[in-house]
Amino acid sequence: QSNSNLIRATLFPGDGIGPEIAESVRQIFKVAEVPIEWEEHYVGTEIDPRTNSFLTWESLESVRRNKVGLKGPMATPIGKGHRSLNLTLRKELNLYANVRPCYSLPGYKTRYDDVNLITIRENTEGEYSGLEHQVVRGVVESLKIITRQASLRVAEYAFHYAKTHGRERVSAIHKANIMQKTDGLFLKCCREVAEKYPEIKYEEVVIDNCCMMLVKNPALFDVLVMPNLYGDIISDLCAGLIGGLGLTPSCNIGEGGIALAEAVHGSAPDIAGKNLANPTALLLSSVSMLRHLELHDKADRIQDAILKTIAEGKYRTGDLGGTATTTEFTNAICDHL
Amino acid sequence: QSNSNLIRATLFPGDGIGPEIAESVRQIFKVAEVPIEWEEHYVGTEIDPRTNSFLTWESLESVRRNKVGLKGPMATPIGKGHRSLNLTLRKELNLYANVRPCYSLPGYKTRYDDVNLITIRENTEGEYSGLEHQVVRGVVESLKIITRQASLRVAEYAFHYAKTHGRERVSAIHKANIMQKTDGLFLKCCREVAEKYPEIKYEEVVIDNCCMMLVKNPALFDVLVMPNLYGDIISDLCAGLIGGLGLTPSCNIGEGGIALAEAVHGSAPDIAGKNLANPTALLLSSVSMLRHLELHDKADRIQDAILKTIAEGKYRTGDLGGTATTTEFTNAICDHL
Ligand SMILES: CC(C)[C@H](C(=O)O)[C@@H](O)C(=O)O
Ligand SMILES: CC(C)[C@H](C(=O)O)[C@@H](O)C(=O)O
Repeated sequence: QSNSNLIRATLFPGDGIGPEIAESVRQIFKVAEVPIEWEEHYVGTEIDPRTNSFLTWESLESVRRNKVGLKGPMATPIGKGHRSLNLTLRKELNLYANVRPCYSLPGYKTRYDDVNLITIRENTEGEYSGLEHQVVRGVVESLKIITRQASLRVAEYAFHYAKTHGRERVSAIHKANIMQKTDGLFLKCCREVAEKYPEIKYEEVVIDNCCMMLVKNPALFDVLVMPNLYGDIISDLCAGLIGGLGLTPSCNIGEGGIALAEAVHGSAPDIAGKNLANPTALLLSSVSMLRHLELHDKADRIQDAILKTIAEGKYRTGDLGGTATTTEFTNAICDHL
Repeated sequence: QSNSNLIRATLFPGDGIGPEIAESVRQIFKVAEVPIEWEEHYVGTEIDPRTNSFLTWESLESVRRNKVGLKGPMATPIGKGHRSLNLTLRKELNLYANVRPCYSLPGYKTRYDDVNLITIRENTEGEYSGLEHQVVRGVVESLKIITRQASLRVAEYAFHYAKTHGRERVSAIHKANIMQKTDGLFLKCCREVAEKYPEIKYEEVVIDNCCMMLVKNPALFDVLVMPNLYGDIISDLCAGLIGGLGLTPSCNIGEGGIALAEAVHGSAPDIAGKNLANPTALLLSSVSMLRHLELHDKADRIQDAILKTIAEGKYRTGDLGGTATTTEFTNAICDHL
C-alpha cells in the first residue's frame, strides 16, 4: 500500500491535547504537500513486557526502522515504579542530543526581542543516571556520571550543527570549578572537538554566570552545549525568554541517525479535546524534523507560514492572549502556505 | 582600647576593588553613626598551615569570636591544590545558608521592574561535596550528598526568615522527579518544617520550570529555598534580572549565629585602584549584616540613602552607565543620610 516516493515517519500524537495538535501538523503537511507518510503509534494502556513500559515494542521498532519521528506530549501514568515515558524513549532509542532552537517570534512581544540561540543538551547520562542510594539513615547520595564517549558525541554534534547551520560560536556550559573531574572531562572533550572546527569560535561559560548573562543579554549566545541537567535547566530558561514551552521546537538525535522531534510542553489535560490548544511547539518541531530530512524548502515554507500567522496576531490561541481555536489558527497557517 | 558600646565585626576588604568598596562602607557607617568597630583582616600571601589556606587562622577566629562580618571579593590565588577562599570560608565557618535578597532598584531600568524575592541556598553539601573519581578510563563520577540535618537546617532558616520578614510563601526548588532520593529527602525535610509554619504558604517547583517562570514572571516568587547547586544557579539568574551581581547583597548564615555578609561579584582587577568600582553590592550586604544585628533603624536609613542615590541617577558608576567615581557615589549617599 505504501507509496515508495514517500518518507515514512513515526507519529506519536501523545496524550491530552496531543491528538489535536498532531492533527494540525497532519493538515499542514497535506496542504504543503510534504512527502511524508505517517505511521501512527499511541501509548499503551498496559505495560508492554518487551519494553517494561507503556510504550509498545512496535512503536519503538517503528522509530528504529523509520529513523525519523514526531512526538506530542506524553503523560506518564501515575504509580510506583513506572519510568517516565520521555526517559524511556531517550534510553531505548539512545537519543543522545536534545536540540532546541530558541528565537524571538516576530510580533509576539516578550521582554526580549533579540533571542536567537540553540541549546544542545547531552541527553543520556550526567545527573540522570538513576543511581542513588541511602548511605546511612538521613544521608543519601546520587551519582553524576560523565563519560568521554557521550561527551565527545554531543560535542561533535554541536560543532557539526554550528558548521552546517551557519552558526559562529559554540559555548560549553559547565561547573568545572566545582566538579573538576566530571565537568572537567566534559570540557576536555569539547576542547578536543573544537580543535577540529577552527572556523567555529569556542568558549566555556560557568553555568551560574551563563544564566545571569542569558537574562541580561541573550544575544551574547549562539550555540550552547552542556551536560544533561544544565541542558534541562537552560533550555527551559531560554524557552521562557521567548514565551514558553508552547512556542519552542525540540528534536532528539539518536545513534544511527535517528531524529525524534517533540513538543516538550505538557499534555494540558484541562483544555484537552476543546480545540483550544496551541500547536506551535509541535509544528515547529515538525519543521526541525523536515530540516533533519533536508527537506529545507518545505521546512522554510511551513515555518514562514507559522511565523506570519503569529506575527499578524489575528488568529492566536488563548495562551498567546488570543481567542482563536486550534482549527482557526491551523487554517490561518494553511492560508499562508 | 575597645569601646564596649560598640559591636565588633570582622571586615575582609578582599582583593582588587575590595579595599575601595570597603572604604565606602566604612565612610557611610561613620556618617550614619553605626555602633560598629571593625576588625580588619586580609587574605595572606602564603598558606597558613593551621587553615591549609591563604586565609589566616586569626581571621577565621575573628569571625568566630565576633559572630558577624563583612567580606569583599576574594580572588583565589591560582595554582594547583588551593581550595577556593569562598569555599574554605563556608566550610571552616559552617556557613550553611546563603541568603540573597533580590529586588528591582527603583529608577534603575532593566527588563524587569517587579522583582522582590529572596533566594536561600544550602551552602555546605549537595553537588559541592568534592567527592569525585574516575571509575575507569573515560568514565568519571561525582557524588551529590543530601543530608537530613543540613536540609532541615536550611529549611528551618528559610521558614523562620519568611515569618520574621513578613513574607508569605516559601517555594522549595528541586529535581525530585529525576533525583528521587536526594532531592526527595530535601523536599521531605522542607515539608516537615512547613508543617510547623502553617501561616506560611509552601509549594514545590521543579528547577527547570522555576527558571522558566522566573524569566517570564518573577513576581510569582517570594522566598525560594534549594540545594547548593540550584541555589548557585538561581541566585545568579535572579541577580541578572535586576542588573547583576554588582547590585545584589548576600549574607551567609553559620552555626552558632554567625553571619558573614559578602559582595558576591568578582574582584575586577582591571579597574582596581582607579576609584571606578560600584560599592552597591557590598553596601547592601552591610545592610543585611545590620539587619542580622537587628539594627533596623540604621539599616533602613542606609538602604534608603543607597536606593535614593541610584534612583536619582545623578551619581552612578560606570557599570550602571554613569561617570561617577566610587568616592562621588559614596559622598552622594552620605548626603542622603
Ligand atoms: C519530565 C522530565 C523528566 C524531563 C527532564 O527532566 O528531562 C523534562 O523536564 C524535559 O526537559 O524533557
Ligand atoms: C566561585 C564559586 C566557587 C562560587 C560557587 O559556585 O558557590 C560562586 O559561584 C558563588 O556563588 O559564590
